[in-house]
Amino acid sequence: MNDPGPDVDDVAEARDVTDELARELDRAHVFHSWSAQAQTSSLVIASGRGCRVWDHAGVEYLDFSSQLVNVNIGHQHPAVVSAIREQAELLTTVAPATVNLARGEAAKRIVARAPEGFRRVFFTNGGADANENAIRLARLTTGRDKILSTYRSYHGNTGAAIVSTGDWRRVPNEFARGHVHFFGPYLYRSEFWARSAEEECERALQHLRRVIESEGPQTIAAVLLETVPGTAGVLVPPPGYLARVRELCDRHGILLILDEVMAGFGRTGRWFAFDGYEVRPDLITFAKGVNSGYVPAGGVIIDEPIAAGFDERVFPGGLTYSGHPLAMASIVATLDAMASEGVVEHARAIGETAIGPGLAELADRHELIGEVRGEGVFWAMELVADRETREPLPAAAMGELKAALLARGLLPFIQDNRIHVVPPCVVTADEVAEAMAIYDEVLSAVGGAS
Amino acid sequence: MNDPGPDVDDVAEARDVTDELARELDRAHVFHSWSAQAQTSSLVIASGRGCRVWDHAGVEYLDFSSQLVNVNIGHQHPAVVSAIREQAELLTTVAPATVNLARGEAAKRIVARAPEGFRRVFFTNGGADANENAIRLARLTTGRDKILSTYRSYHGNTGAAIVSTGDWRRVPNEFARGHVHFFGPYLYRSEFWARSAEEECERALQHLRRVIESEGPQTIAAVLLETVPGTAGVLVPPPGYLARVRELCDRHGILLILDEVMAGFGRTGRWFAFDGYEVRPDLITFAKGVNSGYVPAGGVIIDEPIAAGFDERVFPGGLTYSGHPLAMASIVATLDAMASEGVVEHARAIGETAIGPGLAELADRHELIGEVRGEGVFWAMELVADRETREPLPAAAMGELKAALLARGLLPFIQDNRIHVVPPCVVTADEVAEAMAIYDEVLSAVGGAS
Repeated sequence: MNDPGPDVDDVAEARDVTDELARELDRAHVFHSWSAQAQTSSLVIASGRGCRVWDHAGVEYLDFSSQLVNVNIGHQHPAVVSAIREQAELLTTVAPATVNLARGEAAKRIVARAPEGFRRVFFTNGGADANENAIRLARLTTGRDKILSTYRSYHGNTGAAIVSTGDWRRVPNEFARGHVHFFGPYLYRSEFWARSAEEECERALQHLRRVIESEGPQTIAAVLLETVPGTAGVLVPPPGYLARVRELCDRHGILLILDEVMAGFGRTGRWFAFDGYEVRPDLITFAKGVNSGYVPAGGVIIDEPIAAGFDERVFPGGLTYSGHPLAMASIVATLDAMASEGVVEHARAIGETAIGPGLAELADRHELIGEVRGEGVFWAMELVADRETREPLPAAAMGELKAALLARGLLPFIQDNRIHVVPPCVVTADEVAEAMAIYDEVLSAVGGAS
Repeated sequence: MNDPGPDVDDVAEARDVTDELARELDRAHVFHSWSAQAQTSSLVIASGRGCRVWDHAGVEYLDFSSQLVNVNIGHQHPAVVSAIREQAELLTTVAPATVNLARGEAAKRIVARAPEGFRRVFFTNGGADANENAIRLARLTTGRDKILSTYRSYHGNTGAAIVSTGDWRRVPNEFARGHVHFFGPYLYRSEFWARSAEEECERALQHLRRVIESEGPQTIAAVLLETVPGTAGVLVPPPGYLARVRELCDRHGILLILDEVMAGFGRTGRWFAFDGYEVRPDLITFAKGVNSGYVPAGGVIIDEPIAAGFDERVFPGGLTYSGHPLAMASIVATLDAMASEGVVEHARAIGETAIGPGLAELADRHELIGEVRGEGVFWAMELVADRETREPLPAAAMGELKAALLARGLLPFIQDNRIHVVPPCVVTADEVAEAMAIYDEVLSAVGGAS
């Protein structure tokens, strides 16, 4: 925080009071996502810049979570903040049935990053309704019901999105029909008794082929995949897997939806994660990185043959805030700034030169680390109680780790037995070094105690 | 638009060019809600203030749609715009698991308007995911599956919300289970052969009771109702109906969810539409009016016994932008401005003194009008080809009406055979008079031609 001026003590005290007020209001009135309400965090975040955030008292954290892996451009990028302020002066909201310049400009920039032949964007408020509408488009286009997705996945919180999701969050929410789950490739914890990446890839494909055959290919509208499953553990797919999923889909008239909500717009060091593979999806869903979440927004990029199917046929989906001007202005500014500042290229380089090597070094030094994997600013350290058995580090130890990281000023992303290393794309080599030193210290403390 | 300065012609030409650019980008790249894409509107909206909006060329429209019935406080309220600009400078986005002051302040103001005993708010991005999460809370609290809602309703676009919806938009989207539909009261087109409001109310209740009995009360988690069904036709419920639905629910341990997404925060001339009835819901869903849609936001207000059920149990729902600071700051400013400027009271008064009488007069003069109904700034004119048979005015004539209203500078809300008269809550008596004159002229023109 900047120098608060002469009355340092008074100001700091006032800020402590504000933090406490924020906590009181939160405890009294806010019902939190994915939580037991008596056990929510008391971490106050009041302001941010780049890879740093602060509470009201000026306590600083190095953000290696990007919040929920969305602040790709960093906190409070001045060009994006300015664009929001300017659009706020002009027009904040407008009905989706009208024409608005910011919306067209945002769509133009998004399709410019998609493969040849993608020309139109349907805008939503976030990733969940992006997946809802991609699923809708796939079902209406094919006339088929079933959506295939992996057990290790997260696709959002609403009706169809949460049942597409594979992880535990699906189980209390299964009120949608037509969803089938299969296992994707994940060599470190192979479902296929594989011993090499090649074997894992072959066997995962055989498994998917058998699921498709057994479900009946003519009943399947789409395969829905996170290009790189994110919350499930940054599961970078083995070479060839996605291309051959595409072949399987083509053989049976099944559409391929790639969920780029977390992986897209720079996270992997590419504009889209799938740019790194020989695969062309039919529908692309996005949110988070497209505007770093500065204003809630998401959407579906639609391959032209699918979009054209609705030129004369009514698309039965929509929402009040589809193409919301404030969100659209933030997308335009974000994508322009990312392009002109080389943010995506930076994410790739920092992954190759700093984060990857840094994590490899940590893995050398700490028995706790079973595997590190990732690319760009999208990495996971998988922590184990035993390297031989790969038994996950227990929840209690993970809780200790989290508290220790926070106490040392690092805001971590902890999921199951993993630390996801997911800073903003603009993270510097110095900030990576700072984070690595903190991870090192904390892994030593907890590792030593275990 | 204000005087554009000396080079009037040049500026106007530049603005025409901008409108055309906006249309070109829209046609090329934007996929629209609820539309056949070849038939979307070419109406450009670039800016607004109060009840007026403009395109880039300065062509003005009187907004009697409130866009999608969301701009309750009017376009570009300076206090709300300032609050968005200020929060944008401070912190646009933050993870929902953290504590943020704007979020607590927003929640505090929302529960202050709810009945005694409501203390906590779960925030979403809009109305659809508000209903998704209310449904989730009801199912998890009761351990039951079924959600009962009316055929004449709209509850949002996502998995469970769209299948709760009763109107045609549900039919191509039925991929969620556990939804049952019944008929609500609607005397003008009674499903129960009723001839008076009392008879309609009694029979609608008997029908609901029979549906509950036939479905099995112990299988029903909740009845989900728009307090005043909106898009379905501004169907103000008859006296006693909602209170007795509540009794029916209580008898069987069924929760009552009131959807106040369109009806809430001033639209009816009350903070909540249900404030006008002897009814206390268990869960209240909101969006639109809470911040006039300036930033995408919605949520669920949760009665404390239900919220407390998740103090030690994980709530399996959530989203990245739950309690988004920019949205929260806009809620705080909107609710404060609405309170200090008496916006809700104004909406009630203008409905009683200007809109209601104005519409009654139109109904006297035009055979086309079968019924007018509503309150506050929430009205519908039901147009008929024949007052005796109540045959709806055909779509072609409704299309003519819409074009004629737009041509005269009024932005209408047209739904099926109805004109919904839904200006911002801040509409003045002069603006109402202006709109009534335009409706009058257009009804004469089309009525004469029919």
